Amino acid sequence: MPPTAVPTGVAPTGDYSGPLRPQVHFSPPVGFMNDPNGLFQASNGTYHLYYQYNPTALVAGNQHWGHATSDDLYTWTNQPIALFPPSGVEGAGVFSGSAVIDTNNTSGFFGNLTEGVDPIVAIYTLNTPEKQTQDIAYSLDGGYTFTEYENNPVLDINSTQFRDPKTIWHEETGKWVMAVTYSQEFAIGIYTSPNLIEWEFASNFSHAGLLGLQYECSNLVPVPVKDSDELIWVMYISINPGAPLGGSVGQYFPGTFNGTHFEAFDAAARIDGFGKDNYASQFFYGTPANESISIGWASNWQYTNLVPTAEEGWRSSMATPRRHYVTNATRIGYVLASEPYQIESVRNSSLLPDGAESASIVNTTVEIDLKNNTSGAVYFALNFTIPDGANVPETAAVTLTMRSSASNETLLAGHYLGGSNAGTTWVDRGKLTGFEHPLFSDKVSHTIVGNAESLSGIFDRSLFEVFVNGGEFSATSTVFPSEMLDTLEVTTTDLPEGADVSAAVWGLRSTWAQQ
Amino acid sequence: MPPTAVPTGVAPTGDYSGPLRPQVHFSPPVGFMNDPNGLFQASNGTYHLYYQYNPTALVAGNQHWGHATSDDLYTWTNQPIALFPPSGVEGAGVFSGSAVIDTNNTSGFFGNLTEGVDPIVAIYTLNTPEKQTQDIAYSLDGGYTFTEYENNPVLDINSTQFRDPKTIWHEETGKWVMAVTYSQEFAIGIYTSPNLIEWEFASNFSHAGLLGLQYECSNLVPVPVKDSDELIWVMYISINPGAPLGGSVGQYFPGTFNGTHFEAFDAAARIDGFGKDNYASQFFYGTPANESISIGWASNWQYTNLVPTAEEGWRSSMATPRRHYVTNATRIGYVLASEPYQIESVRNSSLLPDGAESASIVNTTVEIDLKNNTSGAVYFALNFTIPDGANVPETAAVTLTMRSSASNETLLAGHYLGGSNAGTTWVDRGKLTGFEHPLFSDKVSHTIVGNAESLSGIFDRSLFEVFVNGGEFSATSTVFPSEMLDTLEVTTTDLPEGADVSAAVWGLRSTWAQQ
Repeated sequence: MPPTAVPTGVAPTGDYSGPLRPQVHFSPPVGFMNDPNGLFQASNGTYHLYYQYNPTALVAGNQHWGHATSDDLYTWTNQPIALFPPSGVEGAGVFSGSAVIDTNNTSGFFGNLTEGVDPIVAIYTLNTPEKQTQDIAYSLDGGYTFTEYENNPVLDINSTQFRDPKTIWHEETGKWVMAVTYSQEFAIGIYTSPNLIEWEFASNFSHAGLLGLQYECSNLVPVPVKDSDELIWVMYISINPGAPLGGSVGQYFPGTFNGTHFEAFDAAARIDGFGKDNYASQFFYGTPANESISIGWASNWQYTNLVPTAEEGWRSSMATPRRHYVTNATRIGYVLASEPYQIESVRNSSLLPDGAESASIVNTTVEIDLKNNTSGAVYFALNFTIPDGANVPETAAVTLTMRSSASNETLLAGHYLGGSNAGTTWVDRGKLTGFEHPLFSDKVSHTIVGNAESLSGIFDRSLFEVFVNGGEFSATSTVFPSEMLDTLEVTTTDLPEGADVSAAVWGLRSTWAQQ
Repeated sequence: MPPTAVPTGVAPTGDYSGPLRPQVHFSPPVGFMNDPNGLFQASNGTYHLYYQYNPTALVAGNQHWGHATSDDLYTWTNQPIALFPPSGVEGAGVFSGSAVIDTNNTSGFFGNLTEGVDPIVAIYTLNTPEKQTQDIAYSLDGGYTFTEYENNPVLDINSTQFRDPKTIWHEETGKWVMAVTYSQEFAIGIYTSPNLIEWEFASNFSHAGLLGLQYECSNLVPVPVKDSDELIWVMYISINPGAPLGGSVGQYFPGTFNGTHFEAFDAAARIDGFGKDNYASQFFYGTPANESISIGWASNWQYTNLVPTAEEGWRSSMATPRRHYVTNATRIGYVLASEPYQIESVRNSSLLPDGAESASIVNTTVEIDLKNNTSGAVYFALNFTIPDGANVPETAAVTLTMRSSASNETLLAGHYLGGSNAGTTWVDRGKLTGFEHPLFSDKVSHTIVGNAESLSGIFDRSLFEVFVNGGEFSATSTVFPSEMLDTLEVTTTDLPEGADVSAAVWGLRSTWAQQ
């Protein structure tokens, strides 16, 4: 159970061995976590992840910025809590926000900075019962401890629904640019500043795509175009509640940005992910221009305060870090693709029978024993080959079944290769027995034009993520088995002559085993 | 089973007594049905419903226009098939389209029409392996039999993805206006005509809202504003596949229309309904200006060809006819609301214990015996009263459970009154055992600002529809129990002091009992 006092100066500690505890994803040592905050990559390459953190309870509230660091985005070191609600302000919480590296000391906070230490400024929402303001704090030790700016707030419009500032450096205009949500007016305010302290209103981007009941956690970022040096600006907006699948979801708008105004290329609504559990994604500051990386919160406000991981002393994990690119998908055009960021770095040996690197699975089932995979985390990659012009039956399909030998409960996913559902990927978590709630929907699906070329996925105890065509489309689902899922069956049915499904399955290294 | 020959000149017949056969909804006598077509109200008040009809099989294909008529939209008379694929055109099908009353004989087809007979023109897509063209046919007997126009097609752009013309009379410009989908280009073409024969391109409305993988079945219609004489133009577009919940869904855009160009008020994507089974809605032609009525197809292409009603010789039904109005919902603004059209006209007596008109259900369960309700169709209406300023617990909720005493399977729905899910209505069809498919998702939900004031619904053997606040939001779900659901339990929990849930439950009259 979480401590009753907030730990200061030392990293909170926790037990990462529970059967639902992810082994390659970040989850808080103890207590409740939601949105990722302040993501940046330091000049020495270290990734910093802050997060909305309630260190003293297993439900949302009492918002601090927890902190962790990593060199590979999978192996995390918990750090002391970075931001605390100001003492003496009743009911205050440090809500979501971002961090930047103020390389040119535009803020003036870093006159005496030790050489080699990054000048970090956090820009966040201070939430009080009266209003939400944008405040800043600076760090003289590269992001580990922060000092609140003495003249906070830096942006105050006297609103209770004005939050989640995400700030970037806009090279062309030589200014800081903040995207911040007027949550219940369905608008993203764009503000600019020379120094992170004085902010000037530039424009609003509003009433676009799915409204839900609130806009939250916007990002306005340049994203590389696939196989190109081009960058396309993307406005990314999370909505909650009111997602089509219920609760929380992210959507995005590719377009142009001139330093003050964002214009979407069209009025289409593009949803990021077809699962229910990838929210409040934030893009890292400080990564190379050709690397756009984000982390999302792998949960949904509809049930996050109720999930059974509380029995292990924690609630909520982050989704697998995504590397993004914009691509031109068949027919529908612009797509913000997401691939797991260098998942190879935590791959162990093959789990296929006899340790084979891959298996051809044609109209049969291959059963893969996971009992000796002590991390309980698995990465699979299926490649589909369908001969051009093949007559693919309606019933041609690939099905993955993860099963518990103790309880016989299953987690299922699959892809239809033929008929009217050809190109449809699906996930069914409803046959697991560890959690039941009217809003914990079981089945999700997504259809692309033509068949997928590949389907890959990460299973990590209480998280399941699938990636179609290497990340063109993806779904993140929390999953709650009652018992360990210790078998993976890969089945293909009714593949036509000449078709092949090639499968590779690896265990993943437990990055938390030493903690 | 469907006949092997297409019946001509006589109405197809069928058995409407099966345990899954809706009793107050339209379903085809035998065979497979999809989109509603050609909806119009004749000058004598009779409603005409045509529909995509495969009279010889239980899956989609061999498209005819089936036909039925009704004076109340619930009690239908099957009519002979109205439109047949042209003989001699290999692989041709009569796809979706609309019908109008050519009162001024603009087409010239009606010089010798018998007085009192409406001059009906059907505008539809002729689908062949080569292309999709817009064709017309006229009826000299008020819509029962049709003659194809000899110089068809009236609109041909040499495309295989150009369909579903929906035509209206635009009084201000004195022209016919057709909205037709360039399905895979995500555009609605707007064409005008003086005579239904010569069509001129006016404009495109494109790349708006959710794209899915195809646009289909658009409507461009004026809809009354609630409590006002005003009308607002609505562009209504169905998409399939690619809905957020998988498969088929409708979305709409309120805006302005000047006879040639439609402009949406904003770039927001507004989804019609939070269930999976309300598609291809079409608005009636010929209703009074203050009455906007539509009928949708109550199914989803993901599983429509697989559902178990085939055992009874038919597949797919229409959703309850909706009366529409545009309203201004809290925070989100424009909403296309849908209420069941005069459902009172088919209401039988109260099913509450002792025949009470209503029951106050406060922190208890009332069990309602449905065994004597021979239609198996039920209408319920719950009204919620929560005192202003009441402290409503997180757990305050209303739950409806329909149960089979034979199998104990259940169909569930509910509304959360407190906590972070306050205002959320949900439906769970996953605990019924009559149908299982990876794409037949179980749970849907929708959240509004604040609590609902009312929740009503129609259960009709294999259809379940819920309406929040009298139709501001709604969900249509196909449901497949293995056994009759013969008990309804209404439960309220943790209502605060002074709160009340008032429930009324009526049986519905079987409108098909005589057929």
